[in-house]
Amino acid sequence: MKTNHCKIVDCTIRDGGLVNNWDFSVEFVQSLYASLNDAGVDYMEIGYKNSPKLLKGADEAGPWRFLNDDFLRTVIPQKGTTKLSALVDIGRVDENDILPRNESMLDLIRVACYIKDVDKALDLVRTFHDRGYETTINIMALSNVMENDLIEAFSMIKESVVDVVYVVDSYGSLDHNDIHFLVNKFKEHLPNKRIGVHTHNNMQLAFSNTLVAAELGVEMLDASIYGMGRGAGNCPTEALLTHLKNSKYQLRSVLGFLEKYMIPMRDKWEWGYLIPYLITGTLDEHPRSAMALLASDDRDKYLDFYDQMTTPEVSIHKKNS
Amino acid sequence: MKTNHCKIVDCTIRDGGLVNNWDFSVEFVQSLYASLNDAGVDYMEIGYKNSPKLLKGADEAGPWRFLNDDFLRTVIPQKGTTKLSALVDIGRVDENDILPRNESMLDLIRVACYIKDVDKALDLVRTFHDRGYETTINIMALSNVMENDLIEAFSMIKESVVDVVYVVDSYGSLDHNDIHFLVNKFKEHLPNKRIGVHTHNNMQLAFSNTLVAAELGVEMLDASIYGMGRGAGNCPTEALLTHLKNSKYQLRSVLGFLEKYMIPMRDKWEWGYLIPYLITGTLDEHPRSAMALLASDDRDKYLDFYDQMTTPEVSIHKKNS
Repeated sequence: MKTNHCKIVDCTIRDGGLVNNWDFSVEFVQSLYASLNDAGVDYMEIGYKNSPKLLKGADEAGPWRFLNDDFLRTVIPQKGTTKLSALVDIGRVDENDILPRNESMLDLIRVACYIKDVDKALDLVRTFHDRGYETTINIMALSNVMENDLIEAFSMIKESVVDVVYVVDSYGSLDHNDIHFLVNKFKEHLPNKRIGVHTHNNMQLAFSNTLVAAELGVEMLDASIYGMGRGAGNCPTEALLTHLKNSKYQLRSVLGFLEKYMIPMRDKWEWGYLIPYLITGTLDEHPRSAMALLASDDRDKYLDFYDQMTTPEVSIHKKNS
Repeated sequence: MKTNHCKIVDCTIRDGGLVNNWDFSVEFVQSLYASLNDAGVDYMEIGYKNSPKLLKGADEAGPWRFLNDDFLRTVIPQKGTTKLSALVDIGRVDENDILPRNESMLDLIRVACYIKDVDKALDLVRTFHDRGYETTINIMALSNVMENDLIEAFSMIKESVVDVVYVVDSYGSLDHNDIHFLVNKFKEHLPNKRIGVHTHNNMQLAFSNTLVAAELGVEMLDASIYGMGRGAGNCPTEALLTHLKNSKYQLRSVLGFLEKYMIPMRDKWEWGYLIPYLITGTLDEHPRSAMALLASDDRDKYLDFYDQMTTPEVSIHKKNS
């Protein structure tokens, strides 16, 4: 198994922010950056670069949801070898916020989109590329995409300037056979592009799927410390660090961070393998219904939840009798 | 992926007993049996069939550590289609305790051993086989076995009466490539035997490794509800139920049990993915040192633990100066 072509993108702040509304202290982010840099991690995704003008509830979120270069410079006055990345969503980013790369702390800008918006995503990619950034396009919810739409997207992506195209398992519903299928399809249709993978742990397959992708030649591997990320979370960065056949990575360098910062974080916030996430994963559904259940008084009613999720909706509009 | 040749062996009571010293109520075990039977699970391993005379601390453990047929008949007065299994350890079982199968509640007796005791294990297997039981031999800690010893063991097993031979990932250190390697080796050397797999979740690979084994033709898949088992735990039964391509299994049937019994169990006892277990797993070590750490006041000192586990031992016998 050769995996020394791989680069790790730690998404703890960005995807983990979906768990705690980006309530990370500056000290937390600084310590994480130092640990990842020591560990040899290639990229740290330090948040979203969306515009607060284009999102509701912006006031309540931590600063990592709307990254600002002046602020970032105070957080990380001295960059190491770990590059910085930000994610943007279609329709939520103001292009005027994006400095030329040589004036910015960021190295990589990633554009997340659903299949129907690949054209818009590639327009953004072109803008970021022209300003000097590395770019990726992350097509979400691939498990719900029809072949014809995917082929159409590939034809646009192939002609674009994007550097890396991501296989994103938004629902945590894929297994290693699905990863084989998708990665091979991406390689076949996009021979001129590098490939990335972003997994979710609904079925405890996030790490395994990431390893399988790496062995198939996927180059950019998303992960987060202790798997912290939306819902069931992601592939754990620490597991990749110790298991990839690439001697530059060091598990030891993140252990101090894990014990000091992630144990209290885990006590305060919930993510990871829970039965409602297994249910949405196995049903190939968005985890939002599981997240709503877990935030309610009915959080432990797994059987009712399963029945709701699997019963065709019936009309509740009875005629008066 | 064809997996409809598979049989699930739920080990919650037996392997989970290593977490809570077999402190399961009769009601818990009865409800689990009913749920597994409804779900279509093939075997329930309801404990150990070791002799209390041959083990220290026997008084403190629950009855599932020393199964007794009279007791079992009161627990499960009416068997369903789910068969009952028990595990025995070399040197801890009194053969006089084992009734002929037609007088016993048990259908399957499994013998766990290290590679050096395969001969003794096969003697026990012969006894149980002659009394009418299905039998397996579970060779533990395969990741630490040298090829020559394994080949010698295969030659004995091949000539034996044992029905199923297990690949056991005692340390949770194997990935899918290792599973490929071991299963193919077992198939090559033991063409006349069926194969089983028992995984541990130190690196979050237990479920994935079990699926890979199933696709390679492994027939008996060990699992436990919510992954409850020693240390990092096992492959979760619920994940297998929903993911195996075998329409007879029903996830829904265990959800009521999970919500009623496993949430309080999880609140009281600890198992699953924790960093000390990741460390012993990735170092291919027995989890006992991680278990000791987690039971101590230093349970969160991951970095010190890693350094202890990776530093060659130095002499602490200083000369007087």
